[in-house]
This record gives sequence, C-alpha cells and structure tokens, in this order.
Amino acid sequence: MTRKLKVGLIGVGRQGHNHYENLLTMPDVDLQYICDLKVDDEWKKEYANVPHVVKDYHEVLDDPEIEAVLIVTSTDTHAGIVLDAAKAHKHIFCEKPFSLTTPESEVREILKIVDANHLKLQMGFNRRMDPQFRDIYERVRKGVIGSPQIVKTTSRDPFVLDKELIKRVGTLPFDFTIHDLDMVRYMMGSNITEIYAKGGTLIDPTLKEIDDVDTIALVLEFENGSFGLIDNSRQAVYGYDERVEVFGSEGMLKAENVSNSTVELYTDKQEEKKNPLPIFMSRYHEAYLNEIHSFVGAVIEDKPVVANGVDAIMAQRAAIAVDQSIKLGKPIKVDPTFEL
Amino acid sequence: MTRKLKVGLIGVGRQGHNHYENLLTMPDVDLQYICDLKVDDEWKKEYANVPHVVKDYHEVLDDPEIEAVLIVTSTDTHAGIVLDAAKAHKHIFCEKPFSLTTPESEVREILKIVDANHLKLQMGFNRRMDPQFRDIYERVRKGVIGSPQIVKTTSRDPFVLDKELIKRVGTLPFDFTIHDLDMVRYMMGSNITEIYAKGGTLIDPTLKEIDDVDTIALVLEFENGSFGLIDNSRQAVYGYDERVEVFGSEGMLKAENVSNSTVELYTDKQEEKKNPLPIFMSRYHEAYLNEIHSFVGAVIEDKPVVANGVDAIMAQRAAIAVDQSIKLGKPIKVDPTFEL
Amino acid sequence: MTRKLKVGLIGVGRQGHNHYENLLTMPDVDLQYICDLKVDDEWKKEYANVPHVVKDYHEVLDDPEIEAVLIVTSTDTHAGIVLDAAKAHKHIFCEKPFSLTTPESEVREILKIVDANHLKLQMGFNRRMDPQFRDIYERVRKGVIGSPQIVKTTSRDPFVLDKELIKRVGTLPFDFTIHDLDMVRYMMGSNITEIYAKGGTLIDPTLKEIDDVDTIALVLEFENGSFGLIDNSRQAVYGYDERVEVFGSEGMLKAENVSNSTVELYTDKQEEKKNPLPIFMSRYHEAYLNEIHSFVGAVIEDKPVVANGVDAIMAQRAAIAVDQSIKLGKPIKVDPTFEL
Amino acid sequence: MTRKLKVGLIGVGRQGHNHYENLLTMPDVDLQYICDLKVDDEWKKEYANVPHVVKDYHEVLDDPEIEAVLIVTSTDTHAGIVLDAAKAHKHIFCEKPFSLTTPESEVREILKIVDANHLKLQMGFNRRMDPQFRDIYERVRKGVIGSPQIVKTTSRDPFVLDKELIKRVGTLPFDFTIHDLDMVRYMMGSNITEIYAKGGTLIDPTLKEIDDVDTIALVLEFENGSFGLIDNSRQAVYGYDERVEVFGSEGMLKAENVSNSTVELYTDKQEEKKNPLPIFMSRYHEAYLNEIHSFVGAVIEDKPVVANGVDAIMAQRAAIAVDQSIKLGKPIKVDPTFEL
Repeated sequence: MTRKLKVGLIGVGRQGHNHYENLLTMPDVDLQYICDLKVDDEWKKEYANVPHVVKDYHEVLDDPEIEAVLIVTSTDTHAGIVLDAAKAHKHIFCEKPFSLTTPESEVREILKIVDANHLKLQMGFNRRMDPQFRDIYERVRKGVIGSPQIVKTTSRDPFVLDKELIKRVGTLPFDFTIHDLDMVRYMMGSNITEIYAKGGTLIDPTLKEIDDVDTIALVLEFENGSFGLIDNSRQAVYGYDERVEVFGSEGMLKAENVSNSTVELYTDKQEEKKNPLPIFMSRYHEAYLNEIHSFVGAVIEDKPVVANGVDAIMAQRAAIAVDQSIKLGKPIKVDPTFEL
Repeated sequence: MTRKLKVGLIGVGRQGHNHYENLLTMPDVDLQYICDLKVDDEWKKEYANVPHVVKDYHEVLDDPEIEAVLIVTSTDTHAGIVLDAAKAHKHIFCEKPFSLTTPESEVREILKIVDANHLKLQMGFNRRMDPQFRDIYERVRKGVIGSPQIVKTTSRDPFVLDKELIKRVGTLPFDFTIHDLDMVRYMMGSNITEIYAKGGTLIDPTLKEIDDVDTIALVLEFENGSFGLIDNSRQAVYGYDERVEVFGSEGMLKAENVSNSTVELYTDKQEEKKNPLPIFMSRYHEAYLNEIHSFVGAVIEDKPVVANGVDAIMAQRAAIAVDQSIKLGKPIKVDPTFEL
Repeated sequence: MTRKLKVGLIGVGRQGHNHYENLLTMPDVDLQYICDLKVDDEWKKEYANVPHVVKDYHEVLDDPEIEAVLIVTSTDTHAGIVLDAAKAHKHIFCEKPFSLTTPESEVREILKIVDANHLKLQMGFNRRMDPQFRDIYERVRKGVIGSPQIVKTTSRDPFVLDKELIKRVGTLPFDFTIHDLDMVRYMMGSNITEIYAKGGTLIDPTLKEIDDVDTIALVLEFENGSFGLIDNSRQAVYGYDERVEVFGSEGMLKAENVSNSTVELYTDKQEEKKNPLPIFMSRYHEAYLNEIHSFVGAVIEDKPVVANGVDAIMAQRAAIAVDQSIKLGKPIKVDPTFEL
Repeated sequence: MTRKLKVGLIGVGRQGHNHYENLLTMPDVDLQYICDLKVDDEWKKEYANVPHVVKDYHEVLDDPEIEAVLIVTSTDTHAGIVLDAAKAHKHIFCEKPFSLTTPESEVREILKIVDANHLKLQMGFNRRMDPQFRDIYERVRKGVIGSPQIVKTTSRDPFVLDKELIKRVGTLPFDFTIHDLDMVRYMMGSNITEIYAKGGTLIDPTLKEIDDVDTIALVLEFENGSFGLIDNSRQAVYGYDERVEVFGSEGMLKAENVSNSTVELYTDKQEEKKNPLPIFMSRYHEAYLNEIHSFVGAVIEDKPVVANGVDAIMAQRAAIAVDQSIKLGKPIKVDPTFEL
C-alpha cells in the first residue's frame, strides 16, 4: 500500500459531505480535519471518527502535519482560502469556480504563489473525471476520430435553483455553463477564441430580477479553427441531461446519458425505458470519487493535476464572455493566451 | 380507388429518376410525360411505359390533360419553369431550393400568380415527410413536450461533393444547411429572427476557391424567443448523419440515425453495431415517397401542401443570413414577416 | 439488363397479393398469369396489366412460355400443384409448409421429379432472406463467432388467429414453430436430432378444441452437439416479436426487433420508445421481396435456391416432433439423415 | 439512526472480502468478528479496525453480544456452521448453495431449529437483489405484464473455472444454473414441476473427467402451467452475460446486460459500443450490497428475508433435476410441495 496523505476538509455542506464519504473509502487518505463554520458539539459526535473537528480553517492550515486541503466552502471564499493555503504550503483541491468576482490579475498572483511553493492546485471540474467523458477525451487524444472539428455538449439541470442559492453560487454562465466551457476546451485540446451566446428566461421570467437566464444556446470557435455548440437549461423535467459529442475527420465519439436501469417494458401502448439519472450527485458519483482520487495520486506521486489554475482562469474567461455576449448581443472575443 | 392525377415529370437526373420510380408505385398517379434535355431514342426505349418522352418542357405545359408537374431540373432553371407552369395552370412540385439567384421580389411575383390561379406549389423539403421527423413534428404540435425551447439538428454528408456540382446546386448554406433551416423553423412553428453562423474549411481547404465552406456551426433565435443550434459537415466518414432534437417545458423528443440493421456482434474485443445508412437516397427513401404522395393528395383533395412557396422564401432568407454571417463575422437579423 | 423471366402466380389471397406487388417492382420478371379460384370479371379489371387472369392453374402450366410459377394457394393444395408443375417442367416457388398431411415418402417422390427435370424448387422460408437474419447467418458461416454452441429464437405473433384459419394453415407447430425450426437449423448449419417441447393454452383454452396450443417452449439438440431454445406465443400485445441469437466460442450475434422509428420521448414520467413493427407483413417486407428476387435469380442464373425441398422435409420432421413431444410428454428423436 | 446490528463474518475469501467491504459502508452494522481458518498476525494487522479477528467460528457463536453471522465459507461446511449458528441463536446469512451433499431431510431438520428459535436465515441468491431484476420482479408482481407465461434467463460466465475450484463449489448445475433456477421461480411466483435439460462439453471436453459440463440448455414447467427456458455457458468471450425476460398476457419485461459505458464510437468501419461488465463481482456489486443491507434490515425490523431456507431447498431440488436430466436423457419431475 502507498503511504497515507494527511488531509483536511474545509467546508462540509452537501458537496463537502459527498467528498467526505468518498474520502472515507480511500486507503491512501488519512482524513485529519473536518472544518466548517457551523461546527458544534453535534458535529463532533457525527464525525467522531475524524481526529479534529474545527470551525476555523486556520487551525487546519496551521497544522504542519497536514499536506493537502479540500476547499468546498461557498464560492466567494474560495480565492481567500486558496491564497492562505498556498502560503501555508498545502496542496489544494478547490471546488469550481475559482471565484465569481476576483479579478484575473489577483488570481494570477495566487497561482504564482502556488507555483513558487511547488504545490498542486486542482480545480473541481469533476466532469473531466467522469468515466464516459474521460474515455472520449482519451480516445480523441489518441487520434481515434482523427482531427476534431465539432464538439457539442448538452447540460440540463432537473429543476430551477432557488434564487438565494443562485446569488451565492453564481448565475447560469458562471455556475453551470462554465462546466461545458471547460469540457469543450478540454475535449478539443484548444483554447476558445470567440463566443456568441443567446440566453433567455423561457422557464422562469422572474430570474431577470437577479440578472440571470434559464436557457442558453451558444456557438464558439477554437484557436485551432474548430467549432463548438453548447445548450443549457435549468429545467429538464425528465432528469439530469448530460451529453457530449466530438466529431472529427475520422469519426465521431459520443456519450449518451447514464440510466439507472437496462429494464425495458413492452406493452400494447409503447415501449418504455428508464430515464436518465435524476441529479448531478448520482450522475457524477464516480467522477467525484475519481477527481479526489486523482488529486491524492497527483500529490503523492508528484504528477500534474487533471485541472489546474490556468484551466480555472480559461473557464472563467469563457463564462464572462457568455455573460457579456448574452447581454450585449454580439460575439465576444476570448483571449486564448496565458502567461504567469 | 380515387381518381388518377395526370402528371408530367420535368428533369430526370438522379433525383428525378428517384421520383420516377416512386411515381410508378402510386395507384392515383397517371404519369404521362417524361421530359429531359437529354432525351433521345435510348430514353424512349427505357421509358416505353410512359406515353410521352419529350425534350422540351413546354410540350408538357401545353398539354391541357396534364394537371400537375414535378420540376426536378437544375436549380438555376427552377424559377423560370415554375413561372411557366403557373401561367399554364399546372399544380407544381418543385425541388428545393426555389432559386439560387432570383431576387425575393421576383419570387413573390411568381407566388402571386400561383395563388391567383388557385394552384398548389409544393417545395421539395423532403425531411418534413420523413416518418421520424414527422412524428416529432406532430407530437410537438400536440403539446407532448409542452412549450418548445431549444431545437437542434445535425446534418452531415458522407463525402465532399465535386466542386463543379457544388457550383450548380449551391454552396453549403444554400444546398445543405437550408434543409436544417427549414426543419428547425418547421419544428418550432416560429420564424427565425437572427442567425450567427461560423463556417470553415476544416476538411478541404480548396473549397475556398469557390467561396464555400465544409463545416458550419450556428446558433439562431426564433420569433417566439426560443433557440436553435445547427451543425453541418460535408464529410462524416461513418455515413449520412441526420438527427433532430426538440427540448421543451414538458420533455424532449429526439430522432436518432436510422440504421440498416438491428444486428449486434459481441466479441472479446468490443460490441459492434451497424452504422447509419450511407446516403440521403436510402435514408430519406420514405420521405421522398411520402412527399410526392402528399403532393398528389393535396392536389386531388384540394388541401394545403406540406411546404409551400413562403416556406421556400423563409428558408432562402435564412440560408442567405448564414452565408452573410460566416462572411461578415457578425449576427444577421432575419425578417420573420411576409406578405404577398 | 438481364432477360425477363416469364412467371405465373397461382393463388392470390393476402400473401399472394403481397408477392404480386413485389413482382411488379422486379425488372427481370415478366408476370404473365394471375391464377386464383375466385377469379371473375372484377379481378380481370383489377389485374388488367397482367396478360392472363385465369381460374384454373392448369392453364398456367400448359402455357409453354411460362418458365416459373409461384404457388401461394392454401396449404393442403401445395403438394398436388407442385407435382403438376414439376411434371410440366416449371421452376417452382412454393409457400411453406410443403404440406400438412402428405407423407414424407410421397414428398420424396415429388422431389425426385423436380430433380430429374432439373428444376428449381424454392420453399417460402422468408426469414432466411430477412436482412438481419441473413447478416447473422453469413457472419456465422464466416466464423465470426467461432464454433456456434447455442442458438435461440423468439417468435410471437401479435394476436391469436381465427380457429377456422388455423384449421387451414395448420396448428402452432406446423404453421409457426416450423419457421423457427427451419431458422435454428439454418443458423447452426447442422440437422436437428432431438426435440423436447412443452406446449399449453395459456391465452385461449378453447384452442384445445382443435388440438392446438398457443404457447410453446422447447429445447433441441443438433447433430454437431450444439443446442437450441425456441419460444413461441400466439399473442404478444406489443407487436410482432421476432428475435434470433447465436452464441459461439468466439462471440455472440443477435438481432433485436425492428422498430418503425428511432424517435425517443423523455418526459417526467418515463422514456418511451416505439414498439416493434406490428405484423409479419411489415416486419418481413424486405424478406418477402428478397426471397422472390433470389428465386428469380436462381432460375435465371441456374444457381441453388435459398431453401429447397429437403429443407422443407427437415422442417416438417421437426414440426411433427414438436407436436408429438407436446402430446406425449417426452423427448422425440429426429432423423437427421436424408437421401432421395 | 437505527440501532447497530452486531455481526460476525465467517469465511473471508474473495467473496467474504467483498461482503467485508460492503459491511464497512453500512451505518447500522457493527462488524465485531472476522473469522477465517487462515487468520494469522498478518490478518490481524490488515483487519485492525475489527475488534476480533479469530480462526475458530465457535468463538463468534459463543459471544452472546453477536446477533447475526454471515457464512461465506466453502460450500461443504455451510450446513454444519448454519446448524451450529442456529443452535447458538444467531440470525444467519448463508452463501448459496446451502449444501452440495446434505440430504434434504437433514436440511429440513436444520430449518426446523431456525424456525423454532425465531431466527432469520437468508440465502445468498444475490440476483434477487440486483436493481434491474428486482425492478422486473416487482413490476411482474404488480401485474404490469398481466399473467406471466414465459420466463427466460441467460447466464454466461466469462471463463471456465479451474477444475479444483469446481470440485469445491460444485458443478455447473449446482454452482451456476442454480442461480437461474432460483431466479425463474422467483420471477414466476410459482414452483417448478418439471425440467428437461441438455448439457455438453462444447468448450472444454476435459470437464467430463470431473463429471461436469460447460453448456446447458433447458426447458422447464411451472406449477401454474407457464414455461421457462434457461441457457448457460462457462465461457462468453465478450464478458459476463446476464439477462432476464418475462413475457405475459399484457406485455414483456426484459433486462439487458449492464455496460460500463454509454460511449459510442462511429468510424468508417463500424459503430462500436462497450461490452457487458466483465465479471460477476462488478456486475452484481449493487446486488451484493443490497442483499446484506436487506438481511440486516430484516433482522433489525423483524421482517421476512428475501430468500430463505425453503428457497434454498427448491433451488437445490431443481439443480439436482438438471443434473439428472442431463445424465439420464429424460424429463425429470420436481416436487413443488414443501412442508417443514
């Protein structure tokens, strides 16, 4: 067995708890800290199997035994905690997006510290670790479909989020489309240079009050001359709809939705099949497991992480372009270059 | 049995011959004329079962017995023959597109004569009569998926056409994308108001010589606020790839490719399934049959045709917008209104 | 174009009419005779395009111009007309089964005359010409799945036939299971040596009155040591259910049902897909076309037919074994050898 | 949270370890004992998280704190340990089969003690808890497909087991077909009354040395008049092939193989899809989890177990009938009645 990585988990809401359960199953992880602003005696009882259950994340960062932290706090706190963690020489797994408001120049400063301290920083673009999408990614890289020419992703959530939650996690481009933007760039192996996006409130017009949309359709161009199409919806009544297709000079690869059953019913009315899985937690169960697994492996074996700070910046630039394109009604250029 | 409609077929190239074979199987059609510029003694022998085999289409139009004509000549002659046929009081089935170069104002004048003479004019948007797409169309109209919000079509040809042929039938937007533009408008039941299209020569750079592209990805908006995404390629190595998806407030309908087999092979290497049908002739066999069938029915029973002159104009406007958007690099507004 | 084969069609009920329509589409067929006991003036009008419309099949056989006949009369007349046709030196396509009651020794005498006169005799085992099953057959022959070990067929009709009709066409083993028996033997390339069949009236107990069953499940053994499983039902409420699976040392080939659509509906209730095609006429449309086509080709090019008289005898032996096994409650040996 | 059940695990080979890992994830289980004949200091280190790691199962049974045991030892020891556990008043989960050699009369005596002591005894027919098969089972019970008439199962292992292992776990009917026999009885809700089975060594003729076969095809009859078909193979080169189909008066339910991917590749050669999962451990991962979960729940909430001792006896009777039928070449009656 490999050595155990001493880890602290900062932020234990719904998603944090998901990571907590996954961490428990990993033989090379020694979970030392649970840290959350809501920690009280009840928590200490529930997480009795974890040595330290604390409220203040600085306690985690101050412990010299801790090698890596998972940051699963609310989005607006990501940048600050990442900065502190980098200064404290901890390897970092951070949920996406890196930030909703921090200017790119400040993000770059943080990344410089990460780099200077020889730390791993992995962003939670979990879809990169979904077995289906990963399989496509790897086969595209191997040239199985030749030179990629068109990439398409569909992402549709099963229901509209609460407006208060949206304010915290970000509007559709920043919370949701950003996953597709990262995915198409990842699949094509080329940076985005232009986006034209249409957005509207076809489901819930009151989203306009918080400057948000519920439906997005966009076309984008990559540095290598290829094209991408993305469509998003906040509400697919039939379940969580997540598909990817890459078309190239030698063929096509596509991933259909994952269903929870292969059972088929035939009656005098119609054939019936089960719907896609209902929500991201079940759909991306393996992806969430794999992303932490790969982060731990990258730290222990000193290998590149699957999605780093530059990926975060690139996705954020694209999300900003989507937002602007919808609002200004014109194509927005995206800078494909990056230098620390 | 219903009465037989006396019909003349004008233009008998590859597609004309396809219609010829379909006409033979229809009990309510009395095919009286084969007309083509290439007609010679050989033709008269081959079509011995047809009473008249002639070179000049005026002979067909001058015969007072003929009630309807099918115009399957080269695209640049469509407008002229339609005009002559309308003046001669014949019902008209015309292959799409109506025209590559005729200004819309002239087309409108022709449509006025068609209307004034109480004639049917059906345009050859065959996909409207494909059983799969028709099924989706009808269920969308019935409200099965609620209010439609996103429509997506994929059309990919199996190989790049010869440049000389492209010059005759039109570049990608006018010969190929026009089908998708008609289809998305048909599915949504709403006119297109804006298109932003990206195009490139990712397959054959020499297409630039004739001002054409081989790959198109576009986003468009409908008058009712909904959105559309289209992607086209001149060369899908795996076959003719034609898919449609309509997403709405109450569900989603999609049509996958039609394969020529349900046979599955499982070996120690992988499971294998047959590819899509190889080319439009086999893929849309039923659609071609159905469109003529529905045209004949519309004439005999005096009912509306499935795709009329206004549909042709709307599709053409959209194709022009695609062409302009690619060339000018900006979104192009499309006029959704029409009055004769 | 190849020369045209002068053909007479004897028996024009539902299935005969199906063949009639297919014959019309074949350029190498010159249909000279329509022959049916019910022929009257109405028929002569309906089949005005056929030179001779007659009541007595001897008229067809007496015409020296006629090279081949299709026998699509009621089952009990097959053997007699085949014998007369063979004596009149006509190539013969005969619907299965060859006979319900004629002893095998008499059948053998007829086959001897067919052979002595160098005639083709093709039996209407249409499923052999179904594109899916044919594809499996050919790939099994090529060794794609290695040595075949298990073959399985499912055949389920959409509704129970009328008892009077059953009396004419034969009980379940002789009218229906016989297709599966021919198919499994064809797929395995080995003769059946033993059958154990269970049958019952799970759907319509009144079938016992005519000594019939509505449900059959059987296991059989082939001369080469491999095994087969067949299940039949007279009533699948969801449509005509026809599947074949061949399992071998190097893999498996299976053909699923053919559906009339690739359209999928997703709603908040369930995903829905279209059912199998509803009835044998639509399901085996291509098979019926192909079998006549292949018969005509076999005659014109003097090649072996796809299913001959020996195949008919072998299928009949197996059907008798099924019938006996159900009635006697024990495995029945089947003689795999045959000599004219 | 519900109370925790104190559990001992007896037998920790490959399958025992599988259960061990599943037990760790269950919040209502307090695993107190690991017991295996091979236990040494190395084991004590590996299972340091378990309070007691012992060699002799009597130590587990003697601990009054222990409420339930899981028996995952070699098959020949099952009956003895179950008897001892029942006498020690422990609830029992026992891997199938109950026994290879113990006469049914002795088994009945053990079941009487289990009953007299008000204990749960659950047999490891894991497929009953597979989500797909369970879904079919429940829908059949609800009458979704009306009255069931035909049930079919296919079970094919990916490779031939080692002969020494076969000697320990039982020949094909007792180790493998027994699962299908239990499944068809479970699905139909009716006891088996007759079996006719064909078996052969089509893959590995040397299996004859240990009186075993590698291929089985059988037909069986149920007490309610319906029929079943089962086919088994020791070697499907494409993976672990497990399918179930139930056909009834109102429709059909079937479960296809579970694949590990929805990714599809289209190239100029063919479409390719991923194969079934490779082996029972991955295919039935959820089933194994669910069966222990349901056992724990049955004990804590005092509800019936999903598969009990009578089920074990019924499956064993059927497996014996399969074995006899193959060897004697005739249908074997199975007694559908049972009384303690």
